[in-house]
Amino acid sequence: MNVSAVPELAPPLRLLLGPGPSMVHPRVLRAMSTPLLGHLDPRFLEIMNEVQAQLRAVFRTENPFTIAVSGTGSAGMEAALVNLIEPGDAAIVVAAGVFGNRMAEIVGRCGGRLVKLDVPWGQVCELGRIEEALRKEGKVKVVAVVHAETSTGAQQPMEGLGKLCHAHGALLVVDTVTSLGGVPVEVDAWEADAVYSGTQKCLSCPPGLAPLTLSPRALDAVKARKTKVQSWYLDAGMVADYWAEGKRVYHHTAPISMVYALRESLRLVLEEGLEARFARHRRHSAALMAGVAALGCSPQAQEGHRLPSLNCVRAPAGVDEGAVRKALLNEHDIEIGGGLGPLAGQVWRIGLMGESSRQENVLAVLAALEQALAKQGKAPKPGASLAAALESYARS
Amino acid sequence: MNVSAVPELAPPLRLLLGPGPSMVHPRVLRAMSTPLLGHLDPRFLEIMNEVQAQLRAVFRTENPFTIAVSGTGSAGMEAALVNLIEPGDAAIVVAAGVFGNRMAEIVGRCGGRLVKLDVPWGQVCELGRIEEALRKEGKVKVVAVVHAETSTGAQQPMEGLGKLCHAHGALLVVDTVTSLGGVPVEVDAWEADAVYSGTQKCLSCPPGLAPLTLSPRALDAVKARKTKVQSWYLDAGMVADYWAEGKRVYHHTAPISMVYALRESLRLVLEEGLEARFARHRRHSAALMAGVAALGCSPQAQEGHRLPSLNCVRAPAGVDEGAVRKALLNEHDIEIGGGLGPLAGQVWRIGLMGESSRQENVLAVLAALEQALAKQGKAPKPGASLAAALESYARS
Repeated sequence: MNVSAVPELAPPLRLLLGPGPSMVHPRVLRAMSTPLLGHLDPRFLEIMNEVQAQLRAVFRTENPFTIAVSGTGSAGMEAALVNLIEPGDAAIVVAAGVFGNRMAEIVGRCGGRLVKLDVPWGQVCELGRIEEALRKEGKVKVVAVVHAETSTGAQQPMEGLGKLCHAHGALLVVDTVTSLGGVPVEVDAWEADAVYSGTQKCLSCPPGLAPLTLSPRALDAVKARKTKVQSWYLDAGMVADYWAEGKRVYHHTAPISMVYALRESLRLVLEEGLEARFARHRRHSAALMAGVAALGCSPQAQEGHRLPSLNCVRAPAGVDEGAVRKALLNEHDIEIGGGLGPLAGQVWRIGLMGESSRQENVLAVLAALEQALAKQGKAPKPGASLAAALESYARS
Repeated sequence: MNVSAVPELAPPLRLLLGPGPSMVHPRVLRAMSTPLLGHLDPRFLEIMNEVQAQLRAVFRTENPFTIAVSGTGSAGMEAALVNLIEPGDAAIVVAAGVFGNRMAEIVGRCGGRLVKLDVPWGQVCELGRIEEALRKEGKVKVVAVVHAETSTGAQQPMEGLGKLCHAHGALLVVDTVTSLGGVPVEVDAWEADAVYSGTQKCLSCPPGLAPLTLSPRALDAVKARKTKVQSWYLDAGMVADYWAEGKRVYHHTAPISMVYALRESLRLVLEEGLEARFARHRRHSAALMAGVAALGCSPQAQEGHRLPSLNCVRAPAGVDEGAVRKALLNEHDIEIGGGLGPLAGQVWRIGLMGESSRQENVLAVLAALEQALAKQGKAPKPGASLAAALESYARS
């Protein structure tokens, strides 16, 4: 490649309805392009305070340790686990999809003793099963669950889980990458100890930061470690000293522009209001699901436990789902996701997250799906899916 | 804090002449605010190819594994070390400042056997000393040096070091955070095996990515590991499968907007040309150093080994250096850096990196320093430092 000939950046304009990133509001793009402050500038430190307060509101927590990790969602996952798990510590991980399995993988890399509760993809884990594992294992350091499994569209119920973990002396780690800002996340009410997310899903901010909150109980566990955290970059004690008001010890350079973007995206979330935002996510998801049902798609996730932010549906029998996604991208500039792991080639993952969760997007993707299916000779009654979506809107 | 009252983002406009971030060109800010593609969009994968080619040109390497790690410079450091060092591996680390010491700290967290060569801050390490350590230690996995020590302004000579390491069966890891794009970095000519940098220094891109290149020899070492890399997020094998053309296996979501920004900043670097850019950095550094000498400042770094990108000078005797920095920030909106560790309270670190390396900035900071010193009764002859800078420019 002749590197001097790399042209001006001119990507196509896509409608992002996949598993993330979601659409970003122009206000967020504009804030992100603000000329930079230094990462130790007193004004930047105020901005960090503001972002911490905003994140506490969105996480619904009073945890002083509530920050944005300098990496994408997976860095948040790694930060939560490497800080809490020391070699030999037992960790129960609910694995009901890609992200539960990723947690299990990281537990292994921490030298933890992994107790993996495998759950069929699309299902959720019953509290009783976790309780049984806690009883059986004796001393358990961490129970880790994915609240919103991006690979299956299932939403793990959280009621009673924190209390159960604490009754057994375990800490509760929760992945809210695809729920925070779109589906109720109640860190304090759940009594969760380490909760992380990503910015590019229901917060509608570009990827690059991972919101993370640790309870005082989790911080005590970090302080009581016998060994150093294996990651210097993600060491919660050191990162806390940078984020803590009054300390601000230099650790590493914060991704300043991303912090600007996150701040603006959180302003938008809080201006809309969390409850209104959750209702919006439910309304558009219901319309989409009504529409895709009319196209012959059935939901992958267990009934009663479906994420409104990430709609995972099985492609109609006999349809080449990859060709449909390609047609959506190339002919309509619409991105939706395919299946991962055992679901590859079988499902579509349609994200209606944050700014992407809008009526015009629901109609656009349904129309495009109908046209792509028609090309494969699988067209349903023309307009039936849009009609079903509109009926859903009329009821809501 | 009332989070609903977080106001519009309106930071003061600073002239960034500290140890980073440096000034960002408007073209980079504009590219960064481009609406996003998905991280698996075919067009985004082309953009990744372009950035890889640009990075190879700037690193002066043919290494296929040349990527941008999804984190700031310290994540690049951690990525280089955690992938190469397994528990029990010996690592020789030259520690001549904060960043050499950070490498040593990370080696410890990898379970490596650390052989630390302490060097007085501001000095560089002689090749003979590293050779002696290699002879003495026998089997050494890694020799790690900081090319441009941001905490002291010293530039480590690299000639012969790669050959020496390889003759002893060791891999060479080099930190070029404060040199890449401002000072010659010659990955292939140095025979360096793992070289990382940050974006917010001489590349003049916002912080958030860490360029990293691994030689085929380093990749062989990664493949020959007996244990898994302790970081899942920074696992080079898995990250490589995402960046490799034709593979593109999903690992984690790339920070898309930051990749846009880096691509544009590298376009600017390559449009200017590396040699012209290095000459520019030398020219403005020489003028600045002439100017601060006239203010009574002496360089911290060893003569003949001073970084043009990061000018570390001792504050004149009896001056409250912190008050001077505060005056620069509050009265002139100019950020410069203070000293870290043993140099705290003693030095200023004036960065002239990338877009910050300009004549008007040299004059601005000299004038502001003169005025701040005058307030402390330490004013030199009015205008003498600017005159010295102009004389330097006249000679160059």
